[in-house]
Amino acid sequence: MLTKKDLKEYIDAGSSKIKADLAIINGTLINVDTSEYYKANIAIYKEKIVAVDTDISDYIDEHTKIIDAKNKYLSPGLIDCHIHVECSKLSMIRFAQAVLPHGTTSIVSGLDEYISVIGLTGLKEIFQEINNSPLKVFWGLPYKTPYTIPESTIAYDISGKDHQKIQSNPNCYGVWETVREAVQTKDESTIEALLEAQKNHKPILGCSPMTKGKQLNEFLMSGVRVDHESYDHEELLEKARKGLHVVIRESAVTKFLNENIKALTEKTPGISRHVSFCSDDVSARYILDNGHIDRMIKLAINAGVSPMEAIQMATINGAEANEIDNQVGSIAPGKDADILIIDQPGKFNIETVISKGKLIEENSKEIFEYKIPKRSNKLVHTINLNHVKAENFKYHVSLKDGSAKVQTISSVGPFVRKRKDVTLKVKNGVVEPNIEKDVAAVSVLERYGINGNISKGFISGWSFKKGAIATSAAPDDNNIVVAGVNYDDMALAVNTLIDNNGGQVVVIDGKIISLIQLPVAGIASDLEPQELAKQEIRLDDAAKKIGSQLPDPIFYLSFLPITAIPDLAITDGGNVDYTQLKYFDPILELNS
Amino acid sequence: MLTKKDLKEYIDAGSSKIKADLAIINGTLINVDTSEYYKANIAIYKEKIVAVDTDISDYIDEHTKIIDAKNKYLSPGLIDCHIHVECSKLSMIRFAQAVLPHGTTSIVSGLDEYISVIGLTGLKEIFQEINNSPLKVFWGLPYKTPYTIPESTIAYDISGKDHQKIQSNPNCYGVWETVREAVQTKDESTIEALLEAQKNHKPILGCSPMTKGKQLNEFLMSGVRVDHESYDHEELLEKARKGLHVVIRESAVTKFLNENIKALTEKTPGISRHVSFCSDDVSARYILDNGHIDRMIKLAINAGVSPMEAIQMATINGAEANEIDNQVGSIAPGKDADILIIDQPGKFNIETVISKGKLIEENSKEIFEYKIPKRSNKLVHTINLNHVKAENFKYHVSLKDGSAKVQTISSVGPFVRKRKDVTLKVKNGVVEPNIEKDVAAVSVLERYGINGNISKGFISGWSFKKGAIATSAAPDDNNIVVAGVNYDDMALAVNTLIDNNGGQVVVIDGKIISLIQLPVAGIASDLEPQELAKQEIRLDDAAKKIGSQLPDPIFYLSFLPITAIPDLAITDGGNVDYTQLKYFDPILELNS
Repeated sequence: MLTKKDLKEYIDAGSSKIKADLAIINGTLINVDTSEYYKANIAIYKEKIVAVDTDISDYIDEHTKIIDAKNKYLSPGLIDCHIHVECSKLSMIRFAQAVLPHGTTSIVSGLDEYISVIGLTGLKEIFQEINNSPLKVFWGLPYKTPYTIPESTIAYDISGKDHQKIQSNPNCYGVWETVREAVQTKDESTIEALLEAQKNHKPILGCSPMTKGKQLNEFLMSGVRVDHESYDHEELLEKARKGLHVVIRESAVTKFLNENIKALTEKTPGISRHVSFCSDDVSARYILDNGHIDRMIKLAINAGVSPMEAIQMATINGAEANEIDNQVGSIAPGKDADILIIDQPGKFNIETVISKGKLIEENSKEIFEYKIPKRSNKLVHTINLNHVKAENFKYHVSLKDGSAKVQTISSVGPFVRKRKDVTLKVKNGVVEPNIEKDVAAVSVLERYGINGNISKGFISGWSFKKGAIATSAAPDDNNIVVAGVNYDDMALAVNTLIDNNGGQVVVIDGKIISLIQLPVAGIASDLEPQELAKQEIRLDDAAKKIGSQLPDPIFYLSFLPITAIPDLAITDGGNVDYTQLKYFDPILELNS
Repeated sequence: MLTKKDLKEYIDAGSSKIKADLAIINGTLINVDTSEYYKANIAIYKEKIVAVDTDISDYIDEHTKIIDAKNKYLSPGLIDCHIHVECSKLSMIRFAQAVLPHGTTSIVSGLDEYISVIGLTGLKEIFQEINNSPLKVFWGLPYKTPYTIPESTIAYDISGKDHQKIQSNPNCYGVWETVREAVQTKDESTIEALLEAQKNHKPILGCSPMTKGKQLNEFLMSGVRVDHESYDHEELLEKARKGLHVVIRESAVTKFLNENIKALTEKTPGISRHVSFCSDDVSARYILDNGHIDRMIKLAINAGVSPMEAIQMATINGAEANEIDNQVGSIAPGKDADILIIDQPGKFNIETVISKGKLIEENSKEIFEYKIPKRSNKLVHTINLNHVKAENFKYHVSLKDGSAKVQTISSVGPFVRKRKDVTLKVKNGVVEPNIEKDVAAVSVLERYGINGNISKGFISGWSFKKGAIATSAAPDDNNIVVAGVNYDDMALAVNTLIDNNGGQVVVIDGKIISLIQLPVAGIASDLEPQELAKQEIRLDDAAKKIGSQLPDPIFYLSFLPITAIPDLAITDGGNVDYTQLKYFDPILELNS
């Protein structure tokens, strides 16, 4: 927030009474407000653009740093319209370091994973980190937490009352990720959040994958403004036609751009102004290998969208969708100085990055010094759990020896889990996982010291041959998820995470094969993106050593507690049937 | 504001569990969100659109009223992005009656003229009137009042403190008409209003006529989002390029459309999405003769803009500019049911008007019954002034007989007033107006019972031959302005307004020739628009009988106290020199 002094200073900088700190000269402006390219010089004072004109000589004195952008183009900083930063396992400052070289200067985020661990009060520390980072975060208060149905256990439940208290705060930019089902069921707390948003004129950000026709109409009555998840271009087009700002999602696992973009390239070019981009969830590795929103620009251009429109989708369109265009989204006086110097619009190779008026990258070299904040004890000691034993994971039944017909959660893809019924041996009163039948044991352990829940179930389709894997980073509740075919290894995996204040681990035959420490809230790391990416590769390799043939078993594991993924899930509360939104008992039959 | 019950009901109406009240079938939708025309049926429940689909049969039962729009087009209701309703002299409900047949269903307004008379507390009664009217008003709290420099006397001064108290209210949609000069001078109260807007994420609506280059940059540092006044298309284009939402003004007196639109038709078609329309000030007569925002659509099409783009400027663009597009601006589920049935986009002749889900006009016939609210005493007794005498208007000087060199305010046009020095006779210690030299006397009388100010000065260029004219409707302070060449007639004119609780009057030789009563706050009338228009014509004719050769002398008179019009003005505080923002003494020299 600006102070009176700040604002007066900026007014004086706008009139050139105070001279610019930084000037970019000789470049060609990509004016996303007017869809034009023309030569312009830019003057910057502190964090803001103060002039964009042919002649900015009045703004310059001997203290002004000059950047020559001859033969280059000037793009606004890019916006990720929907991202769970925490899913990258990078801390906020390290995520900034990963995406800024790719031109992302603003993100819209709910920080919901942090909230699940440290609550709304703990978020203050994260906001401090954000304020000292060159990456801007436009925060939306989650419509409610936990997201799970039935509700799992997290450190803090957000209700309508929180919206009444917090939503009007300057740092709250909307209601985060309101899911269609919560509107459909007229969930009391969600209704309160929606009414509060109407009162505060804050945008409602929605989540309604695979929603069309009457279901879409019903959802739209909530007042939702933005939606970030369409599975095909017909869905995207219908949403745009019905007034939604539609965001195309292209994440590490969910690649919708090439399909979604057909809504423009094959159907209706006119929807362009209400289309923007998001990544939703990405890993350090994915960003380093592929890029971020800059990659979406390239993909869109490859698909036949004009460079101007593709850049607008990554800048002004997303800013307008999220009602943050008074601050970001284009290069204009009064807006934040988030500017990229690129080779040319059609290629979009980023050479220099300026964010919040600071030089971050210059000629593809990191200039900004990313400083890791001192973390409070509260933030780095978030596993409130005693050591466990193999016994804790054994599925006990009333039968001593025989067999059990078991409903397993069979992973078909990262976002599809089907029911698969398998007969397993019962030995000494315990249902045993079975390597031949490809069934492993799974548990979710409540880790906030609230109720000590340890749920138990079975998964199939993972081809485990030995050992166990575990993670404390597991949206949406970030309890500890562990899976394996060896109960002792499962215990060691969980105890390792407890001892390390969180992380992801692979254990085989009593040995820790690979470990990523995630001490920040048990979900994020302060490692440099490159280093984290290396550790991720090692962890993945280790996970393959236990025999898993899934492309990314740790990722699959971490998403097991998300009850919004069809058809089955498991939370600390138990095994969940998404189709019924109810718990189910995995033991279907016992036979002696 | 919706209640929980309302919202739940709308959700059920969206899913068709509750059936529609109204359906419009067989029409062609003008989809301003996607720039498409296609066949669609619309279902409406209470005040909102609940479905826009090919098949809406599930939404209809025997109670649903059906409107057949075969061979017709369906346009969103139109938006006037900047209008001082009070300048029309129509009360809020009568203004609705005037503009709704022309398709205007939403306006953005500061209600600033009302505030000058009845303060912010008095505004509650006006909001009640608005809530019962089918015309929606998106209200912005004026950045400060009075607007005049030096400050004139009004009933209530708005300061930064009011912004801190009121701006976060749900019915406040932004900061109204922030003038460039207040930013330039870093006026303390204005700075507070701007910072508060940043805190509340409310749009800052600006006013910066004839502003380019560095002055524009300076103004933009305020965070201003919208500007409604560009004198030429170069100015408009520069503002759009610098990120402003630009509004083209076409009022009764200020016709900017044909010039401003060249920014699109001759320069940069790409600015279109950030261009919208306003009328700023209109009279009943003007609306009846010319139309309102519908006329601007036609003018834009005539100038070469495509019908789709012209309609977007009158709907979604203005909604987005003012951040009211979650509620209005396009035909989509969840939005207000503001729908026009027209002949075709290129002609834009309106046949049927639906606003807030109510049928207002059907086949060009008025259906809605406009009810005049019972007015409180406070609202209809706002002239707090005792009867005056001729003596009150005489300009006394220290000289008994001789001549005075006088600085007169010479009206060149409605928005240009120049200095003209004239020598007048002094008789018995009084400076006399002079018919031959075309100089009349003028006074502004403070009418809120605050200080009893009566200022005195001289105007030229009006060609008065006899009598006097007076008005209590006179933005921005709405004190009583009277001018004439006969002091007795001036007194009678003012006393007539006092006796009638406000109005506009022409007096000749002790007789009231014509009077419009304006009892609502002394500035507005509850007469039907047609009747008020007739009275306006009669009043104008009467004003011509006193010899005035100005096209609209009452209008010129009412604008005399506006200190923002160059070069000279007169308020209750005295004669004002705009170029110096100071009072001046009209008596330059006395010669015996």
